[in-house]
This record gives sequence, C-alpha cells and structure tokens, in this order.
Amino acid sequence: MRFIDAKTGLEVLYRDECLALMASCNLGRIGVVDGGRPLVLPVNYALAEERVFFRTAPGSKFDAVVRDAQVAFEVDAADPAYRTGWSVLGGGRSTLVTDQRELARIDELGLRPWADFDKPHLVRIDFEWLSGRRIVTVGEPRDENPDQES
Amino acid sequence: MRFIDAKTGLEVLYRDECLALMASCNLGRIGVVDGGRPLVLPVNYALAEERVFFRTAPGSKFDAVVRDAQVAFEVDAADPAYRTGWSVLGGGRSTLVTDQRELARIDELGLRPWADFDKPHLVRIDFEWLSGRRIVTVGEPRDENPDQES
Repeated sequence: MRFIDAKTGLEVLYRDECLALMASCNLGRIGVVDGGRPLVLPVNYALAEERVFFRTAPGSKFDAVVRDAQVAFEVDAADPAYRTGWSVLGGGRSTLVTDQRELARIDELGLRPWADFDKPHLVRIDFEWLSGRRIVTVGEPRDENPDQES
Repeated sequence: MRFIDAKTGLEVLYRDECLALMASCNLGRIGVVDGGRPLVLPVNYALAEERVFFRTAPGSKFDAVVRDAQVAFEVDAADPAYRTGWSVLGGGRSTLVTDQRELARIDELGLRPWADFDKPHLVRIDFEWLSGRRIVTVGEPRDENPDQES
C-alpha cells in the first residue's frame, strides 16, 4: 500500500523504508539553529541501531553547534536524467558519545571522516521522528509508473 | 592562492567559486527554523543574478516555512570512491516573488519542479553570506595508511 501526500503529490515513505534508505548512504546534512538562525552542514555518517553517528573535530564550529543540540538530519538521492528522487528527514537530539563500550562498538562500523584531519569526537543522533518522500509521478517514460514498488 | 581552514583541514572557497559550484547543480537543501527547531528540506533550484530561485506548492508545509523566512541553503557533491567533495552554504532571506517582470525573467530559466505537481509560487533567496569548503587532502592513493590524519 502506497500513500501519496495530497498537497505535494509525493509518495510518503514508511519508517522502515526511511531507515533502509539512510543505511544506503553515507553523506547527509545536519540542520541546526545557531543564534536563532538556521545552518545546514554536510556530514559523513553511519547508521547503527536506528541512530546516526558522525565524527567532529574539537574546536571547530561544526563541533560546537552539533554536539549537544536539537538537530535535523537529511539524506537524499536524485536522478536528474529522470527527474526522480527521494529524501529522508529526521529530527532529534545530538549527543557527544563518551561511553567507552559504545565508542568501541561504533568504531567497528569503520566510520571515518573523508577529510584527512583529526576528528576524535563521536556524536550520536537519537531520532524523535523520521519522515521520507519519494517523487513518483515524473520521469521517462512517464506513463508506465516506473517507480511502482508494491 | 589556496586557503586551508586550520581547524578542519578543508580548503576555503572564494565567493566566485561558491557561485560557480551552485550554478553547476540544481538540487540543494534549505534549512529553516520552525517553531524553534531546525528543518532541512531538499529543493530543486536555479541560480540567477547571484540568487537562488525555487518553486513551492501553496498550502504545503514547505511553502509555509520557506516563503518569507531566514533560511540557510546548502549544495554539495561528493565522490565516495575518492572520499573527496565540496559543499557550499549560504544564508539569507527568502521572499515570495510577485513582481510580474521578475516572474517572467525567471520563467526563462526553465526552472520547473521535478515532482509532477502544481507549484505556482516562486521563491527567491537573497544571500547575506556564502561560504564553501573542499576536501583536498585525501584521494588516491590512500592504501598505504588510510587512517593517517595529519
């Protein structure tokens, strides 16, 4: 069963689909409120136990704004040629991970930053909500419903 | 002359580079503050006259939160195989475009939403600031000591 958002025409994804799509990527974007203003920052992440984990460099602005904050987290993928795509958005609390057992467990995920720089802080996002959308009504050929999945 | 951010090891991009990179893409993400909390929403956009333009559907949550607000706007591209990439982030005010001459001028950009749904509102972002970063210190060959972080 598929649901279409009547206001946008986009397919509404289930939580399990959102998590599967998030698990299939490793570059996301974090939204934070900094001094009352929004910021969006790209981040290399890993998903484990329905949580997002990423590394930060102590002393960086990124570390300061995301390490214990209310955050949004977004992942998307697009196919410009077919004008199709999906996006997953979540919101929750970010927390600096300090528990040694958790640090060791997440270390096994092989999460390492793309930038060749020291990023010893590990930050975790616990999601309070997750939502996802998929564009289903456009693309060549437009008449055969290429994205139908159920 | 290239500048490297000492705290992150990332190359700092000039404004002209930021604008050129933004012009090379058409999928970005908008960050907004909604009821005190951050949101990040993907958007199909066009760049013209150093401003970002995108369409929204009246009545949608997206339209409500982005049409006259302080927003962040982010574009990025990554090459997972080489663990390289860049991102551009800007901040400014979003405004619903109502001037007929401006609407006609932007219409010529061919900006149309990917989702096959009516999105008659045109929104413009006037940037108060722009910044960009590029990962420059990794890439092939990394296999000698892939985790070394200087």
